[in-house]
This record gives sequence, C-alpha cells and structure tokens, in this order.
Amino acid sequence: MDSDWLSAHRRGVESAAATIVGHVRRTPVLEVDVAGPVLLKPECLQRTGSFKARGAFNAVLRLVAARPDLAGVVAVSSGNHAQAVALAARSAGLPAVVVMPEGSNPVKVAATRALGAVVVSEGVSGENREVVVRELAATRGLALVHPFDDWDVVHGQGTAVLELLADRADVGVVAVPVGGGGLISGSAVVAASATPRVRVIGVEPLLADDAARSLRAGRRLRLDAVPATIADGVRSLALGDIAAEVVLERGMVEDVVTVTEAEIEAAVSVALRDLHLVVEPSGALALAAQLAGRLPPPPSGRSTALLLSGGNVDPALLARLLGAG
Amino acid sequence: MDSDWLSAHRRGVESAAATIVGHVRRTPVLEVDVAGPVLLKPECLQRTGSFKARGAFNAVLRLVAARPDLAGVVAVSSGNHAQAVALAARSAGLPAVVVMPEGSNPVKVAATRALGAVVVSEGVSGENREVVVRELAATRGLALVHPFDDWDVVHGQGTAVLELLADRADVGVVAVPVGGGGLISGSAVVAASATPRVRVIGVEPLLADDAARSLRAGRRLRLDAVPATIADGVRSLALGDIAAEVVLERGMVEDVVTVTEAEIEAAVSVALRDLHLVVEPSGALALAAQLAGRLPPPPSGRSTALLLSGGNVDPALLARLLGAG
Repeated sequence: MDSDWLSAHRRGVESAAATIVGHVRRTPVLEVDVAGPVLLKPECLQRTGSFKARGAFNAVLRLVAARPDLAGVVAVSSGNHAQAVALAARSAGLPAVVVMPEGSNPVKVAATRALGAVVVSEGVSGENREVVVRELAATRGLALVHPFDDWDVVHGQGTAVLELLADRADVGVVAVPVGGGGLISGSAVVAASATPRVRVIGVEPLLADDAARSLRAGRRLRLDAVPATIADGVRSLALGDIAAEVVLERGMVEDVVTVTEAEIEAAVSVALRDLHLVVEPSGALALAAQLAGRLPPPPSGRSTALLLSGGNVDPALLARLLGAG
Repeated sequence: MDSDWLSAHRRGVESAAATIVGHVRRTPVLEVDVAGPVLLKPECLQRTGSFKARGAFNAVLRLVAARPDLAGVVAVSSGNHAQAVALAARSAGLPAVVVMPEGSNPVKVAATRALGAVVVSEGVSGENREVVVRELAATRGLALVHPFDDWDVVHGQGTAVLELLADRADVGVVAVPVGGGGLISGSAVVAASATPRVRVIGVEPLLADDAARSLRAGRRLRLDAVPATIADGVRSLALGDIAAEVVLERGMVEDVVTVTEAEIEAAVSVALRDLHLVVEPSGALALAAQLAGRLPPPPSGRSTALLLSGGNVDPALLARLLGAG
C-alpha cells in the first residue's frame, strides 16, 4: 500500500465531509437482525434518496469555488446521480443538464426534472450516453460531473463509510454495491486507512458481474451490453478508471460477490416488510448478499455493516413485490 | 401543574429508559422537508416495528423483577402492543397470551405468533376484548400488561420523546398519534418537564375523534362503536384513565387535531415515496396533520417533530397506495 497515496485520499474524504456538511444528511446507523446481527447505513434516507448526493455536492461545490463564472453543470446518469447533481446545482444557483438513457426509471426522471434540471433522453442509450454528455459539455461550456470517474465525487461517496466508522468503531466488514465503482472506491479509501483496517466486500448482480470477474482475472473486463438487471443503478458496462485503480491495481477490495435477480427482489421485500425501509434494487445488493449467506463473517468481536445505497424504486415494482408475498 | 406529580412521572420515564436500554433501539431523528422543515422520530424502525416495544419491555421487565414466580403475561391489542408484549415476554423467558379482535390486521397477528405468543381471537370483538383478557388473566394466573392504562407502559412510551429531546434541544412542538392515550401521556410528561417546555399536539382520525371532542368538552367522551378508520392502531373507544388524567384533568396536551382517511392514506404514500419509510396508517397521523397544515407553528427558532409511531402495515394496502399514484 502506497501510504502517501492513501493519506492524500483519506484527507480528500475528510475534506469532502467538511464541504458537504449541512447539505447532506448524516444518516443513522441501524442495528438489526437479518440472517444474523448486522448494521445498516441506510442511504435511502439521504437527501434525493441515495448516497449520490454526497459526491455530487462535493464536486459541484468545489467546481463553483474554483470557477465562480461557471455556466452550469452537465451529468450522465441512470437516475440517482441525476437527482443528486440537480439538487447540488440548484443549491449552488447553477443550471444543470442531465443526460438520462431512454427507458430510465420514470420515478428518477420525474424527480430530476422536479429539482430543476433539464433532462436530455431522446436517442440516448446506455452505450452512447458518455459521448452525448461530453458533446453537451463541450458545446455549451458546461462542467461535467461524472458519476464515478472523478476523485471529488469519489471522496464525497466515501463520507458514508467515514460516518459509519465514526459512529461504530466495531465495524469489521462493510458490504457495498458496485456499479461504476465510485462508492466502493471511496469506501475502500476510508476502510483501508481506518485503525483497525476494515474489510470491504463489493456486491454485484450476477447479470452484471464485470467487477467480480475483473477481480478474478486481475484486469478490467467489460460487459458486452447493458445488463438486464433490475438493479438499475449499477448497469454500467465496466469499472471506471478510478475503481480499476482502487479495486484491481491496488487490491483494496477483498472480494466482489454476486447475487441473483430473485435474491435482489427478496432483499427489497425484506427491507420493506421487516425493516420498514424502502430500498431500491441497487440499494438492496448488500442486503441480498447477507440474506444469501454470501458475505464473509466479520473478525471475532466485530460487526458487519451493509450500505443500503438508495431508495428510489419504481412504485410498480414495489406493488408487485408486495402482491407476491 | 403539580410539580411533585410531574417529577415523579419524569423519574418514571427516566427509570424506564434505563430498564429498556439494550432491549429496544434508540431510533434516529431525521431532518426532512415535508410541507416545511420537520424532524421525524421514526418508531417504525423500532424493534417489532412500533414504539410499543418501549412500554412492553418496561412493564414486563418490572413484573419479572417484582414477581419472579410469574406464570406468564396476557395482553389485549389490535396488533402492535401484541407483538411488543410477545417479544418482551420471550426475552424474559415468560409465556405470553395475546387477545386480538377478530379481523385484526393479519400482518400483526402473524408477527405476534412468530414471536411465540398464543393468540386468542375467536369471538373477540373491539367491544368485549377487555372482558376476555381480564377473564384469562384471572383464570390462568397471568399478569395483565395493559396497552395504555398502566403507568409502567406509559413511562416506557415516554422514552421516545425523552430520546428526541436529548438529541434535539430545539424541539418546540411534538405531534403524536392518540388512541387509548399511552403514548401521548408519556410524551406529555416528558414535554412538560423539559426546559424549555415543549408543546404536545395529539392527532386522531376524524372517524375516531373522541379525544379531540373530549378536550373541547372538558370531559371524557366515548365513541359509540369501533371506528372504521384505516388507522387500526387507534381504534380504542375512549381515552384510558391515565390519559384522561393527563390530557383532560391536568391539561398537559395543547390540542388534539383530526385528519381524514384520505389525508392518512396520502401521508402513508408520502412516507413511502418521498421519505423511503414504511409507516402504517396510525403511524402516519402526525405526518398527515403536518401535510394538511393542521399543526401550529413552533415558537420562533424552534422545530416541530413528528412521532411516526409504527410501520406494520398490511402489504395489500401499500400495494393499493402504490398503484394509485
């Protein structure tokens, strides 16, 4: 481990925490029993309904400080980053344009518009969305807020685990969902620089298991097409460059485990019925892994924590899950 | 105000907090914006899914301490007190019998059985349930744990507002649901003995407005029949004796406001969609009053807090509300 690198990024997360305080919520830590005692960090209770508010506020507030004449920001997102950037931009008094692929979760599209952002969807797919957003950035003079390949965003996302460890010094294992890898990269920086060190386990849908396979292969693998997982927040084709460095090159994530679609749905249902929390499929990945017995036991005397990353679920899906049981 | 009386009951709540610590959760305080900034005390995240665990643990643990040879406990409940007594008895190693009226919320009945209690429902109605439970207590030598007319229970329920004020010294108004009045009585003891004093507002369904009318009449009024409100946790016919003393004789509750069935359903829906919390209709009463603009503004510089009392909602109702919007 390169301790200068780690210290610098640890300071980045601490600095993000100071930047975003007052703009995001300090979510609670809940002690529950779901297939054994675990701690929950319910970011479904975060502003905009997901952890993405953390990274978006850190990135946008830093952009505004660095470039007071900024014309606005642009982002690409399947949904939660969209709402987060929209809110952060509105709070900073900046226009926001958000590129959301056609077929995005309508709850997330409506919420993004309600926060004052202009949503661009026509002709946008999971494959071309990065190109579309870079063109918009170039032609309109907007600053891009990337959903995961931006260290300001990653430092912001790391503040969730920073709070978790501040509240509960006994955490030994933390399980977090993996898409483009912003959350797990920020989490890994905090976990690796904690005393004692905390182990980080990533959780992916089996249908979108590029990070799990990449970790085994020792190199970044890409999915061939946008995966058909119900977990719409983690449909990215591959880890971003930052996550590739953190997870693959620096080896800061112990393992990435996978869960099936049925296991994800069961976890959403358990959250709703037993925990009284509305958690979206992507947000339920770590809970699904816990319920399926796929997480390693924590070191003796220490606890496992699950990061429930968001709650912006399609009401039609919830209604179906409620009817099924 | 009789300061000896108030001090004694304040000490009762503090003593309850010491008794139940480790058995119940310290629920968080959430800062949200629903028709203006408010604080939430989400007891839907409490063990057994409602604040009732607080009073049940305090009463059962005190019974066990006072009567080590106790044969078991018996309770009557439309649901949440049932689960709470079942869990508290199981934790104390005691058998529990729970009388639940026919037609009780099936989610609550199943959860009560799952916690090891024997459920008695046949021939039990809202009108005769008190008689049935007293007979069972007498014939089987079981100690009755009343859902609200027991000061040990009331002191336990008061611990929710005790925690709230410890976490947020700025609370100026707290809104709580009213059924038999156990929660509001415990809350009023804590609020009246706080410095500065905190105002307590009760919230009832319009279909079960006996407390609101009683407060105006200056004497306890009873409903003629079990009210048809969707808020199944507050279908009692009248305030209990303790609540009559606290609310009517001692005047410790500033007002009791009412909400319609549609307003209650809207509040459950807002909790689910916007707050990502599963709140049952009875638990959503204070939120309904906030959304309907029926709560008084807090004193300048102070905050309003809503006690969301429980989350054990029938999945079929949630599915219907999700489909409606």
